[in-house]
Amino acid sequence: MIRRLKRFIIGRPLKNEALADEKYGVLWGLPILASDAISSVAYAGQEILFILIPAIGLLAYNQLLGIAAAIIGLLILLTLSYSQTIENYPNGGGAYIVAKDNLGVLAGVSAGAALSVDYVLTVAVSVSSGVEQITSAFAPLRPYTVLICVVLILLLMVGNLRGIRESSKIFGIPTYAFMFAIISMLIAGFIKLKSGYVPPTSDIKTLEPITLVLLLNAFSNGCTALTGVEAVSNAVPNFKEPPTKNARKVLIILAIIVFTLFGGTSILAKFYPVVPGEHGAMLVQMAELIFDRGPMFYFVTATTFTILIMAANTAFSGFPLLISVVAKDGYSPRQLTMRGDRLSYSNGIIVLSALSILLVVLFKAKVTNLIGLYAIGVFISFTLSQSGMFMRWVKNKGDNWIPKAIVNGFGAFVTAIAVVIIAITKFHQGAFIVVFLIPILVYAMLKVKKHYVAVSKQLRLKPEEMAEIDVERDIYSNHVIVPIESINKSSVRALRYAKTISDNVIAFNVSIDEESGDKIREKYDMLNTDIPLIIKYSPFRKVVDPLLKFIESAEYDYKKGDMITVILPQFAVRSWWHRLLHNHTRVFIEKELLKHKHIVVSVMPLQLKDDKFVLKSGKYD
Amino acid sequence: MIRRLKRFIIGRPLKNEALADEKYGVLWGLPILASDAISSVAYAGQEILFILIPAIGLLAYNQLLGIAAAIIGLLILLTLSYSQTIENYPNGGGAYIVAKDNLGVLAGVSAGAALSVDYVLTVAVSVSSGVEQITSAFAPLRPYTVLICVVLILLLMVGNLRGIRESSKIFGIPTYAFMFAIISMLIAGFIKLKSGYVPPTSDIKTLEPITLVLLLNAFSNGCTALTGVEAVSNAVPNFKEPPTKNARKVLIILAIIVFTLFGGTSILAKFYPVVPGEHGAMLVQMAELIFDRGPMFYFVTATTFTILIMAANTAFSGFPLLISVVAKDGYSPRQLTMRGDRLSYSNGIIVLSALSILLVVLFKAKVTNLIGLYAIGVFISFTLSQSGMFMRWVKNKGDNWIPKAIVNGFGAFVTAIAVVIIAITKFHQGAFIVVFLIPILVYAMLKVKKHYVAVSKQLRLKPEEMAEIDVERDIYSNHVIVPIESINKSSVRALRYAKTISDNVIAFNVSIDEESGDKIREKYDMLNTDIPLIIKYSPFRKVVDPLLKFIESAEYDYKKGDMITVILPQFAVRSWWHRLLHNHTRVFIEKELLKHKHIVVSVMPLQLKDDKFVLKSGKYD
Repeated sequence: MIRRLKRFIIGRPLKNEALADEKYGVLWGLPILASDAISSVAYAGQEILFILIPAIGLLAYNQLLGIAAAIIGLLILLTLSYSQTIENYPNGGGAYIVAKDNLGVLAGVSAGAALSVDYVLTVAVSVSSGVEQITSAFAPLRPYTVLICVVLILLLMVGNLRGIRESSKIFGIPTYAFMFAIISMLIAGFIKLKSGYVPPTSDIKTLEPITLVLLLNAFSNGCTALTGVEAVSNAVPNFKEPPTKNARKVLIILAIIVFTLFGGTSILAKFYPVVPGEHGAMLVQMAELIFDRGPMFYFVTATTFTILIMAANTAFSGFPLLISVVAKDGYSPRQLTMRGDRLSYSNGIIVLSALSILLVVLFKAKVTNLIGLYAIGVFISFTLSQSGMFMRWVKNKGDNWIPKAIVNGFGAFVTAIAVVIIAITKFHQGAFIVVFLIPILVYAMLKVKKHYVAVSKQLRLKPEEMAEIDVERDIYSNHVIVPIESINKSSVRALRYAKTISDNVIAFNVSIDEESGDKIREKYDMLNTDIPLIIKYSPFRKVVDPLLKFIESAEYDYKKGDMITVILPQFAVRSWWHRLLHNHTRVFIEKELLKHKHIVVSVMPLQLKDDKFVLKSGKYD
Repeated sequence: MIRRLKRFIIGRPLKNEALADEKYGVLWGLPILASDAISSVAYAGQEILFILIPAIGLLAYNQLLGIAAAIIGLLILLTLSYSQTIENYPNGGGAYIVAKDNLGVLAGVSAGAALSVDYVLTVAVSVSSGVEQITSAFAPLRPYTVLICVVLILLLMVGNLRGIRESSKIFGIPTYAFMFAIISMLIAGFIKLKSGYVPPTSDIKTLEPITLVLLLNAFSNGCTALTGVEAVSNAVPNFKEPPTKNARKVLIILAIIVFTLFGGTSILAKFYPVVPGEHGAMLVQMAELIFDRGPMFYFVTATTFTILIMAANTAFSGFPLLISVVAKDGYSPRQLTMRGDRLSYSNGIIVLSALSILLVVLFKAKVTNLIGLYAIGVFISFTLSQSGMFMRWVKNKGDNWIPKAIVNGFGAFVTAIAVVIIAITKFHQGAFIVVFLIPILVYAMLKVKKHYVAVSKQLRLKPEEMAEIDVERDIYSNHVIVPIESINKSSVRALRYAKTISDNVIAFNVSIDEESGDKIREKYDMLNTDIPLIIKYSPFRKVVDPLLKFIESAEYDYKKGDMITVILPQFAVRSWWHRLLHNHTRVFIEKELLKHKHIVVSVMPLQLKDDKFVLKSGKYD
């Protein structure tokens, strides 16, 4: 029944051949890869204001422009830097690969850990922000914010388990729709101002001095506008020929769009000084002032919501792919490399959903609460990736390498400074979680690798072991023990089977006292077999300990290194409730015995028939 | 770690020899067996008033006396009836045994179901009432009523899992203390009245006519005073010589005590007309009027609480014992016959705790809510037990059988009428749950028995099967298949083992495509073994289906009825977190294959060494 439910939700299994990649050009590559970066416009500006308004009131809108300019400067630098990564990693240059290639395992694993944290936060922040847009337009939904977020994440999970492809063109449309909506709003907003409209000014009184700490804190929030910029460089092989060129084009157009939308909304906010918070999200409030509650207002709200959910969806393909690559290298559990029935990396998708739901619930789906954790992971991976590129130039040299090294080096330097700024200003607002979590993850990943190396070393065959299979062995080296509880069809079947695999069989019984032991022996003698029966007495009602003790005792003719096969008879019943009616000592005994070297556990099932059939037919009387 | 926690809570395992029964005489037998019946005094009178006061105001106290008289009449009848049961069942005559012996399986199973429900309710009602006494004296505790009840039940559970014996004499003291407290209160109460004290009269205005329905409803509540009277007849073998005589003595003294305490408090309530409910339990309120808040007040409260918890505790030995007897007869899951490490019937104890916690939570630990469910189960078992005794006299005759048959027959008749009264008056107040639950339980118990009969029929050996074990079999009838994922020490070990148990071995591999299949074959050829390797291709990433398909195909030389052994190599890792790093396909494959006839699954563990050891020593390089 559970299986049928799973089929219904996830769909029928797909064959491996279905795993052919769709390739895209600039037109569709742009919206698909850009949704994460572009959607940041929905929260980055607003989160800057959140820091500034309570401190400096209306002056915040002036400072917003300055901070936006700094962030756009960073954007341009990152675009130059990553355009060089694209050129050098035509097979995809995620921070994990670039850092591992050029800076070594520790840096690579650190980038992997930072990116993993980042993906989880992308889901949590994007979904929370998306729902904030909706609840800003429809206030009655506000009490259900967390619930709506959780349901959306679960839908994304199911969709991705079914194997939604990021590459589907439908996924590109919301990005264009969002761009259209925001640009329309910018144009309409400025036209409305020209025509003499004066937006209402909020009455904000708190006035504190503008301090560097305040500005850096606001800058840290603004840095979230740059998350997702690296997506293009990961996806180079997904582009049509010539991939490198197409990818670079997309990266540059992406930068221009983020520049336009982020810059544009920041300027517009100066003239429409809405206060995000209680009255809802900044974009939605501005849209209401500009369009009233007309169709365009709902269009802005809907497209903003949609692009944010699309942004969350990119993490659902990015995270599982990243950790599957990490897992293939042995730094995370191998199950993460396995594709599910629908060819998606199911385990990764489930892990991502669980963690992001946890975050959404803990932080009550408030972007402002989550933002403190967000940017730091991204910027750590930026820094590692750029440093990697810098080292690459220094090591490999090549044509014209010095200016290229300077670009990546400067990129690494600036993003490293951003990491420090974010870590300090946001430490108490959640960044400390990430700061402690990443080293813990790195430690765990190295431990995992160590384990896999140790396992593969132990599994490696030595040349002399290759030819061992067909060597004739002493017939008595194959010991078989059949534990029996009572004499019935099941135990007789097990003894019969034992005889076919060895001439060295014993039956073994644990009785509570001599009386019940004698009863067993009496019945056993009726079987007329030459298999000896060993009876041990145990006041405890367990079979494993007496059996192991017997094997180790002098009584048992067993040479160290011989194999012992223990045959466990088992009923296989037909329905779940019948299963409740039999004790599961078999499972327990199997688990205990398998802890011991040289013991093979053979489970011999006896298929039981339907109760009704047995009771009706005289066959079993 | 979990195991260590269990040890800490439950204690070290005990040997079977520790299971020697303590025998008791009249002095200690009385308090130990009587706590359930005597403790009913704490709620039975009060629950009668709960029905009457809202309808007829102060007249309730007069009617209370009448109803108490009727119940005491019933008590006398039951004492006579059960005294005859004791005489005839010196090995213990619970309702289940008496009804099954004399009325057949259906009646026995019905009594078993009714008693099981009764035991669960004894715990829920007694603990709820006990806590009500405490919260009556200490009002600030009232909001935590449910929590306190749950904690108390969990403590009783742990105590009984550790193997507290009901027979411990310490358990007798609270009963005597309670008797002493209530009798002191009765005496002090009447002396206070003689000395001219006039208790405050509550101002109750509601006045409705006294109807038969009202009185019967109140009577139904009062019937709960008789729960626990049957305990003595169950426990006859636990008495010192002469057991029958001692048990009868105890039963009669018990009846006298219940008579005194229940009758006495009912009369006292007429003079101290307290209103149970918001201001707390009846006994506690009366104690406050009589003793003020002096030491005797606290003594009454404390002993009432304690005897109620002791009463709940009797269910913790009664219920597991009952269902273990039922399980031995095959009417409930066999696991219930197994004693735990501490020789208590752990499964029964856990089931009882879980169900009674469920009731306490659902009914908010209010005795008044639970009382509607309580008496009916007890009275059904009274009726079945007395009817069984009646049939016994009619069938077996014997000396002077007619008056004895009349006593039991009249007992059955009267309790049957009580069942009907309770079922009708309490139907909407919860009795309907029990009325529907008992037939469902009976149906389930009969189904369980059917299953066990069907299983034992299938396990029964026919004479010709007895001598089958040592028959020589065709060497090729023993097929062995070793599924291999890759060529390593573990798979080579499995192949080597396969060779020792059969000459008819194949290796089996499922590859995703030809490329990986060729790689496996190339490596396999280096092993130089004569075991053939079969490679199948499957686009799905599963091994079970291709394997089963292969076995059924003409390609495989397999005659129906031959055994196939499938050998599954497995790593055994050393720590729980290492276990997370390997997929558990083995468990899944084993489960799937065991559904098929004639397949034996052999699990071959490879014990992995500690990572550090492997990585340090050069041995594995």
